[in-house]
Amino acid sequence: MTKEDIGITVSKKEDFSEWYTQIVLKAKLADYAPVKGLIVLRPDGYSIWELLTSIFDKKFANNGIRNGFLPILIPESLLRKEQKHFVGFNLEVFWVTHSGDNEIGDRLALRPTSETLAYTMYSKWIQSWRDLPLKMNFWNSALRAEIKGTKPFLRTSEFLWQEGHTVHATREEAEEEVMKILEIYKNTVEEELAIPVITGNKSEKEKFVGAVYTTTMESIMPDGKALQMGTSHFLGQNFSKPFEVKFADKDNVEHFAWQTSWGVSWRLIGAMIMIHGDDQGLVLPPKIAPTQVVIVPIYKNDDGKDKVLPKVEEIRKILESKEIRVHVDDRRELSPGYKFNDWELKGVPVRIEIGPKDIEKQSVVIAKRYNREKSSLGFTEIEKISTILDEIQIAMLKTAREQANVNSYVISDYNEFKSKIEKGGFFSAPWCGKAECEEKIKEETGADIRVIPFGSGNTNEKCMYCQEQSISVPIFARGY
Amino acid sequence: MTKEDIGITVSKKEDFSEWYTQIVLKAKLADYAPVKGLIVLRPDGYSIWELLTSIFDKKFANNGIRNGFLPILIPESLLRKEQKHFVGFNLEVFWVTHSGDNEIGDRLALRPTSETLAYTMYSKWIQSWRDLPLKMNFWNSALRAEIKGTKPFLRTSEFLWQEGHTVHATREEAEEEVMKILEIYKNTVEEELAIPVITGNKSEKEKFVGAVYTTTMESIMPDGKALQMGTSHFLGQNFSKPFEVKFADKDNVEHFAWQTSWGVSWRLIGAMIMIHGDDQGLVLPPKIAPTQVVIVPIYKNDDGKDKVLPKVEEIRKILESKEIRVHVDDRRELSPGYKFNDWELKGVPVRIEIGPKDIEKQSVVIAKRYNREKSSLGFTEIEKISTILDEIQIAMLKTAREQANVNSYVISDYNEFKSKIEKGGFFSAPWCGKAECEEKIKEETGADIRVIPFGSGNTNEKCMYCQEQSISVPIFARGY
Repeated sequence: MTKEDIGITVSKKEDFSEWYTQIVLKAKLADYAPVKGLIVLRPDGYSIWELLTSIFDKKFANNGIRNGFLPILIPESLLRKEQKHFVGFNLEVFWVTHSGDNEIGDRLALRPTSETLAYTMYSKWIQSWRDLPLKMNFWNSALRAEIKGTKPFLRTSEFLWQEGHTVHATREEAEEEVMKILEIYKNTVEEELAIPVITGNKSEKEKFVGAVYTTTMESIMPDGKALQMGTSHFLGQNFSKPFEVKFADKDNVEHFAWQTSWGVSWRLIGAMIMIHGDDQGLVLPPKIAPTQVVIVPIYKNDDGKDKVLPKVEEIRKILESKEIRVHVDDRRELSPGYKFNDWELKGVPVRIEIGPKDIEKQSVVIAKRYNREKSSLGFTEIEKISTILDEIQIAMLKTAREQANVNSYVISDYNEFKSKIEKGGFFSAPWCGKAECEEKIKEETGADIRVIPFGSGNTNEKCMYCQEQSISVPIFARGY
Repeated sequence: MTKEDIGITVSKKEDFSEWYTQIVLKAKLADYAPVKGLIVLRPDGYSIWELLTSIFDKKFANNGIRNGFLPILIPESLLRKEQKHFVGFNLEVFWVTHSGDNEIGDRLALRPTSETLAYTMYSKWIQSWRDLPLKMNFWNSALRAEIKGTKPFLRTSEFLWQEGHTVHATREEAEEEVMKILEIYKNTVEEELAIPVITGNKSEKEKFVGAVYTTTMESIMPDGKALQMGTSHFLGQNFSKPFEVKFADKDNVEHFAWQTSWGVSWRLIGAMIMIHGDDQGLVLPPKIAPTQVVIVPIYKNDDGKDKVLPKVEEIRKILESKEIRVHVDDRRELSPGYKFNDWELKGVPVRIEIGPKDIEKQSVVIAKRYNREKSSLGFTEIEKISTILDEIQIAMLKTAREQANVNSYVISDYNEFKSKIEKGGFFSAPWCGKAECEEKIKEETGADIRVIPFGSGNTNEKCMYCQEQSISVPIFARGY
């Protein structure tokens, strides 16, 4: 293979879409499956997902949420029970019509989401206030047929995600839960994935079809498009009524329960690739990197080897004792230069180079992936790598915030908006609250209301579109 | 609810099948989904699965196996590519024929197993000997339509499992891998689930349709029926040829690779329930118990509470510092007696009772779930709980081995076999090796060859059925 086959051959600026696809394939995160719209995760991609799920699992558990399993097949009749919700998904549903040679009477849907199934079960499990709150989460895959082109992690007909479903005795408790979850989402994405998000509400038009309201976190990608990073819905009693999720309160009176549902998907990995990657390949934030440090020993002969390898082992042990995920690349048939490129492509946050000369100088060379800076570190200071990783994590979030700010605008003139939206970006603009204006803006510019940030209430301004009194200042953008 | 609604109402001996179902439902491990053949896992059931998967994940990782993700949809044309394998699954396959309102040309199968899909990908990923061995594992669900009655964990149309798929440069290495995996399976099931297994080969008739040979581990259930606990297949080049899984060796000559596949499922949970459960409910081996110790504080008034609760907290902290999974049941509205029954039903290995009198005596009451023995333990000896849990684990395996031995017979007379098989059990009997005898025995008695134990070679005996020279002494039994 030539170098071109291995490395990224287009720049992020030049051809963002091709650059993204090359990173996914060449860093061996994922590959296309034989069926259009479907992808396979290779070990380096799946490891990132495993780290992410384990982080969420801890936070969910601390919030009293427990995991369960729901089957993937939902009878059509059940899916139709909440009709608005059904209409929203209908065209994307995969239908099972046969098992073996037998036709199935009531067609079975492959789960596009599990509200209807979960709440059928919940209505059996919940009898009294003692059974509440019921807070469950499901790590599974959802299926929604994608007609547009496949984009690994971003647009696939099957995607890995978690869907949480909670039930509460009071509206207040359910609404609090919606916000608690959104907070878990936000701090995980910002602190672990180093991606800044803006949280707020979706508009009526953009909310989850079965919800009373939807809260969301949105991020801006380097190409100026918005990506929905996760949503947390207040379902009110929209499902508890048709599905009879009822409980007897302490006074023995029956009430319909209050519910929430919420989810994030492997789309977060897609966002991470887009935000942090560069022309050399993937750049992983340390906290989510399956390998945080790679050590590349450098030597030409047995003499060098005998000097270098024992030190490499020593360093590996020190790092492991600090709970750093470290890998030693001792592949004999490859040159150090090849290995450097390889690990840069794979985005490992820190590379340690160590050869006979370093042994003499009693130090190693440290190469940081995110800014490609090299420095040296004395043998006695190896433990500082922990601090270096922390610093990288913080610096990456800072850089991402700066990038996002550059692409964010406050605007009130519709003509200015129309000219600027061509280049992408987040536009905070006053809005009257009417779906009509929202739809016209979408029609004329391709931009949606992505999020109405919390606290962006009445502004005494005029709607960017109709010039009537505005009620909020949403963020408009074109989306993925 | 009356006591009958809550507790198990039939004895294990009396009605084994009903007893099993009651445990699953009443211990809240699982419940029936709306579609026949499908079940839902509740948190207490799913936690056991999570513990089990984390144990396997560590062992797989130590063996150089990494996890990945495969989509659930496989095109019919791909599934047909290995024809024998296809015929074996055909009647159980769920077929997706529509997405939204559109008919799909090449029907899509819901994964009954992923050999065909995995190896299509592998053939793209593997070019040279440097890419080998490739060892991947996939935690997912498989779907095979069940026509017989649903039995949670044992007979369901969708089941959670892992499927491992490895590729090797040589036959020897692949065959070694088959055995390494079987060994991981065996020691996990025996040491963590406290279930004794017998390992060996499947007969030609009973092997995985796509394999050269299948190794298996089998256990005997308390009702005398055999349960297949896991299989590890040597695929030879049966798939590498049609799927073109080829590699250029060091001499640059292309070879077809050698492959293995292997799997265990949530069926292991079903076996654990059957083997260890009793008339009070579930009995969990400590190593696989999501909660290993439950502490029930006992007091009637505030004075008692003030005495008891601080000590409970102290004990909880000691146990947690020993990495014991502990839960304090401080539900106010329930009596201690109710709680005792509840935790016995749920199978928690050790219960600690502590009331004002125990505080005076400076000791707690320890109730072991598996033999329902009570003893007392001084406050200064709390750390011994670790040892007690270890002892329980060992004792449970010992008891299970004794049970299995009682139901195991060595036999050579077919008439004796026919009369004894009615009551169930494992029957070691000489066999000539001919499929014809195997089939006749199955027809006349309902018993299969479950496993040909390793090392059970030529015995100089006569085949139990045809009286010709035997070539091995398989275990015959009726199975699940």
